[in-house]
Amino acid sequence: MEVGALLTSAGINIALCAVLFSLYSILRKQPSNKIVYFGRRLASVCLRSDDHFFLERFVPSPSWLLRAWEASEDEILAIGGLDAVVFQRLLIFSIRAFSIVAIFCIFVVLPVNYYGKDMQHKNIPSESLEVFSIENVKSNSRWLWTHCFGLYIMSIAACGLLYFEYKRIAKMRLAHVTRSPPNPSHFTVLVRSIPWTPGQSYSDSVKRFFTDYYGSDYLSHQMVYECSILHKLMRDAEKVCHLIKTGPMDGSDPRPCCFCASSTTSFKILSRESGSVGDGISFTDLNLASPENECPSAFVFFKTRYAAVVATRMLQTANPMLWVTQMAPEAQDILWSNLSIPYRQMWLRKIATILASAVFMFIFLVPVTFVQGLTQLDKLSRTFPFLKGILKKEIISHVVTGYLPSVILMLFLYTVPPMMMLFSSVEGHVSRSRRKRSACVKILYFTIWNVFFVNVLSGSVISQLSLFTSVRDIPTELAKAIPSQATFFMTYALTSGWASLACEVMQLFPLLCNLIKKFILLDSEDSSYWLMTFPYHTEVPRVLLFGVIGFTCAVMAPLILPFLLFYFAMAYLVYRNQILNVYLKIYDSGGQYWPIVHNTTIFSLVLTQIIALGVFGIKESPIASGFTIPLIISTLLFNEYCRQRFLPAFRKNAAQVLIEMDRRDEDSGTLREIHQQLQSAYSQMPLAPRKLCDSGKTPQDKVCDPEAVKPGVEASECNAVCDYKIEEST
Amino acid sequence: MEVGALLTSAGINIALCAVLFSLYSILRKQPSNKIVYFGRRLASVCLRSDDHFFLERFVPSPSWLLRAWEASEDEILAIGGLDAVVFQRLLIFSIRAFSIVAIFCIFVVLPVNYYGKDMQHKNIPSESLEVFSIENVKSNSRWLWTHCFGLYIMSIAACGLLYFEYKRIAKMRLAHVTRSPPNPSHFTVLVRSIPWTPGQSYSDSVKRFFTDYYGSDYLSHQMVYECSILHKLMRDAEKVCHLIKTGPMDGSDPRPCCFCASSTTSFKILSRESGSVGDGISFTDLNLASPENECPSAFVFFKTRYAAVVATRMLQTANPMLWVTQMAPEAQDILWSNLSIPYRQMWLRKIATILASAVFMFIFLVPVTFVQGLTQLDKLSRTFPFLKGILKKEIISHVVTGYLPSVILMLFLYTVPPMMMLFSSVEGHVSRSRRKRSACVKILYFTIWNVFFVNVLSGSVISQLSLFTSVRDIPTELAKAIPSQATFFMTYALTSGWASLACEVMQLFPLLCNLIKKFILLDSEDSSYWLMTFPYHTEVPRVLLFGVIGFTCAVMAPLILPFLLFYFAMAYLVYRNQILNVYLKIYDSGGQYWPIVHNTTIFSLVLTQIIALGVFGIKESPIASGFTIPLIISTLLFNEYCRQRFLPAFRKNAAQVLIEMDRRDEDSGTLREIHQQLQSAYSQMPLAPRKLCDSGKTPQDKVCDPEAVKPGVEASECNAVCDYKIEEST
Repeated sequence: MEVGALLTSAGINIALCAVLFSLYSILRKQPSNKIVYFGRRLASVCLRSDDHFFLERFVPSPSWLLRAWEASEDEILAIGGLDAVVFQRLLIFSIRAFSIVAIFCIFVVLPVNYYGKDMQHKNIPSESLEVFSIENVKSNSRWLWTHCFGLYIMSIAACGLLYFEYKRIAKMRLAHVTRSPPNPSHFTVLVRSIPWTPGQSYSDSVKRFFTDYYGSDYLSHQMVYECSILHKLMRDAEKVCHLIKTGPMDGSDPRPCCFCASSTTSFKILSRESGSVGDGISFTDLNLASPENECPSAFVFFKTRYAAVVATRMLQTANPMLWVTQMAPEAQDILWSNLSIPYRQMWLRKIATILASAVFMFIFLVPVTFVQGLTQLDKLSRTFPFLKGILKKEIISHVVTGYLPSVILMLFLYTVPPMMMLFSSVEGHVSRSRRKRSACVKILYFTIWNVFFVNVLSGSVISQLSLFTSVRDIPTELAKAIPSQATFFMTYALTSGWASLACEVMQLFPLLCNLIKKFILLDSEDSSYWLMTFPYHTEVPRVLLFGVIGFTCAVMAPLILPFLLFYFAMAYLVYRNQILNVYLKIYDSGGQYWPIVHNTTIFSLVLTQIIALGVFGIKESPIASGFTIPLIISTLLFNEYCRQRFLPAFRKNAAQVLIEMDRRDEDSGTLREIHQQLQSAYSQMPLAPRKLCDSGKTPQDKVCDPEAVKPGVEASECNAVCDYKIEEST
Repeated sequence: MEVGALLTSAGINIALCAVLFSLYSILRKQPSNKIVYFGRRLASVCLRSDDHFFLERFVPSPSWLLRAWEASEDEILAIGGLDAVVFQRLLIFSIRAFSIVAIFCIFVVLPVNYYGKDMQHKNIPSESLEVFSIENVKSNSRWLWTHCFGLYIMSIAACGLLYFEYKRIAKMRLAHVTRSPPNPSHFTVLVRSIPWTPGQSYSDSVKRFFTDYYGSDYLSHQMVYECSILHKLMRDAEKVCHLIKTGPMDGSDPRPCCFCASSTTSFKILSRESGSVGDGISFTDLNLASPENECPSAFVFFKTRYAAVVATRMLQTANPMLWVTQMAPEAQDILWSNLSIPYRQMWLRKIATILASAVFMFIFLVPVTFVQGLTQLDKLSRTFPFLKGILKKEIISHVVTGYLPSVILMLFLYTVPPMMMLFSSVEGHVSRSRRKRSACVKILYFTIWNVFFVNVLSGSVISQLSLFTSVRDIPTELAKAIPSQATFFMTYALTSGWASLACEVMQLFPLLCNLIKKFILLDSEDSSYWLMTFPYHTEVPRVLLFGVIGFTCAVMAPLILPFLLFYFAMAYLVYRNQILNVYLKIYDSGGQYWPIVHNTTIFSLVLTQIIALGVFGIKESPIASGFTIPLIISTLLFNEYCRQRFLPAFRKNAAQVLIEMDRRDEDSGTLREIHQQLQSAYSQMPLAPRKLCDSGKTPQDKVCDPEAVKPGVEASECNAVCDYKIEEST
């Protein structure tokens, strides 16, 4: 590809971004779109409904960027939780690291590359991009030390920044644990695989076991019930409410009980079965909490945080498959449907999921290979001879090679997150945050493999398969491919990177739905249908992928760095804006995404160093190769040190911290209050039907109000409804 | 190799074994060798010293085999500890599994192999061994299902037996924990990396930390002191004692204090330094337990077992590198010298050791390749033309191809255990049993790589290196090599296997030393210099290696099975005899070797299945290949199940078990007694000098008396002296 083609691509994207961002700044001012662009704010505080017509509403303005920039970290922490801050730190880390690298590489490495060979330089726009990469440096050049030095600067800067970020986030995590208001999940242990004792209910078993062995610390417990019936009832109740709501409106008056107007299945069955279902039925009459419906799982409440952690750290009985304990997720984080999965299936499910993900990853090779073929125009016109005429036109050729491949790849990639989320659901995680993190890791592997490696190493499926036969050649293969593939990655950064940010800020799909609803279905009432939690599982891998691309290309083809830096800077502002305005925090993993970020960055660094080793080998520079090897070793040692120093604190809470929190609460007398809260914190039971339809709001409106997200029945219910919607939308 | 050569080799070995076993049965009856062959018995009970001359003493008898056979498992457990029983179970498992396999393979697979091709069969002795292997079956033969069926029988039998053994050993381990007398190590936590507080000794820090956070359960603690001075003093004291002992004898009278006769360095320095060192000095005067000598490590004693385990399971503070806790090893198991290694070095030491072991593994390729060259006579005679004449003689050719390679390999292999033990020491394990287990794993990897893989795949060093370039071809390469290399493994089983058993029972090196001492140095007094603990780190990998060889060759070349079965049966008897008579149990890991055995066996099974897959591929039998793939998957799933079901119980003790033990002790009132014992269980201080030389025994005699191995000062000292000797001898 020539500089001209790159500039075409950059031009298209800059124009697109500018248009979309301006459009966004107008659309967000329209009252009808408030539900799309201010979902979080709407949910937490009532925004002034300002329907007046004034000119400013139709003039694009950059004020939103300014507002996003001005928000402090504490604000982000309060609004988006620790995970949002970690995501912000990832972007800040990327900006810092790549700024340092860019300064050196643009001003030192780039000229070395450009003048690396004695050749006649054309004017820059028609110069091939390869001229700016390490490919242009002649073999055994004495200027290769600049690349080696660049590698050192990059590694030291990245490791140093990583260390301070890890330290900072570990400290934040500690503060997050100690300073947050009393959290019922700190006192609660989830017990699974309770053994069946004949003539005794699971509940009795739990009580007997914990009073026997944790007598002094055991407070009470609560069983988990088969949730299929519960969920069916809940969903039907929702539908009924919705039906009533969309029926004749009567302002703020309390509606009649939904049962009276019901016609959905489960209610019918219910009325037929129980016979006595009438006007005043309450869910407790249904006897869902009977011993027959008990799952062999329970939430056990302890008197102190420390006691709860002790119970999770111990092997309970000699059979490790019984009485399995773990810290309970927060109430609004629980995936109730997965709680009834027998614990002994878990290992099988895990293996099956890993295998399924791996198979999916390899099946995906087919579209990726097709995309890769597009960059080789001659191949394409040979396969489809009728395209020959069109492809000869310069502008089309530029678009096809510079733009189309990434767009197609991006479209295919949209199918990945739902698949991986499905796999993670099947895996059996009991919390939403854990499931999202698991999906994040899967998508990360997937992206790095399919976007990075396959694009770098491929050409055709066959050549990829033969790759597996030669392990030793991989560094050389990578070294050959990376500098020449840098072109593709530049266009990828432009399309997938910049455009994805524009799409993110535009919220195209919700916007479209909202428009259809308002202007075609003529439904003028706001609904919080599109309230979503932050999609860490797609955004973290995306940003990390650009990190991988950036590190591997930085020294080889530094021309990519400005594009990436621009991406990271825009991403910083855009995601801040989204966290502040759009996404709702319902659950929080407490910074658990950072170890993923850290490991991926170390992986990219080592990968870069190995590739550089290969390149220096090809360029016959033994000194540069020799200096690279200690760098690889030091990077790996640094990683191991961080793993020892920081990681355990991300996995478990320290005894000292917990004991001091317990003491503080005991001294201030809040412990008794917390104990009372605990009893109702993890209720699986739905709301009483009257309550559900009581107010004028829809169930979604009501239960997704984050003010209601406090430990209690409504909180967990809220979440159940919210996330059900969220799953549908991702 | 022909059947004749194999029989020559077998003949030599059978003769050698018979001679050595007979010799052993005579030698063990000689009173002068009692110290070599009945070390353990001598140490535990006084054997009748029977110096009369009678004819029976010089007649070989198999009575020892009978006695070894008759010992019950409880006896082995009482004498050798759970580790000895696990080792026995490994042998029993091998015998059972290979018996089942042998019955099928000898009677079904072997005839199929022999008549696999339409060919003229010679008379059996001059028949090539390849005729009995799968190589002789023609491609696409419909008889290959027998091999596939054999594979199924083997896998099912091995997995079934493995399951029951794992279950049995897990149960035994539980009984070992619950039924053993109160063990101070159950109440003790080793704390490392105690942070330095200015103006406060480590001891004060420990006291403050544990009274603060574990106030109700904390009993007391004991610091670890810099042991370099201590050890120097101890060693010198020993030397002095020895000097006195070898001086003029005066029966059983108490000797004068060793300090009076001293002339070794540390005592001199000491007397010069302190000025007041006289007759009645006690070690406490030396002020070794001063805060200046404190290491940042301590033993913390808890009131109950449960509390101690809780303290080890928790992360103590937010910094995971401080206040690191683990269960304390038993007093006689502690490696005091490693306790003073700073904890923050541990991860670096671990990495360095792994790297060093890996490098050592690859450097070892050189002798192995040389050995492998010996089996290819033509190559050898080309390299050394002057050997051409000798090598043409048939008997020499038989010896060289059938016997010499294994002998040379065996000699080289003798250098491995001390090296690996050294690596494991450097690694920084704080207990001897842990160090031995770590060495065991290293030697296992080493053996399987160097004896199995390199022999199978090699020919020359260069061809081994090129192996790394083709990952996909490995199954095919293995499939090609295994049947033809089965010959080498047969001779290896004969030499390394059978002969090693004969050497083991003869205890050649101790015997030689004893003879030299008695008949050349004319030192008639018995010394327990050769008291040793069981060398699990060499014997477990040896037996497992034969397991790997057995499984991989069983279906391909079943002729190896009778030799292996004979080896396992002999090993069963020989090791029983050695456990009963020779080796002393000083420390015990509580069956922790079984997971190693289990994993290695699963590895061998999967390896076999992969090789079979390759063979069936070469033989063009898609049905057999197709049936092998589900077998591989099931074996891996079985392994994962066992890992979930049994492994955690080998890593941690269950809360239920510990609490019940605590309650039992509290009810019976022994808990107070145990608490008193705890105070003196982990004494690093040496004995008072008078005590050390008081009795007529040498320090070794005294302190290695297992009756003295009870929690207390002497126990730990005993061990320090004993193992110091043991290290020298391995």
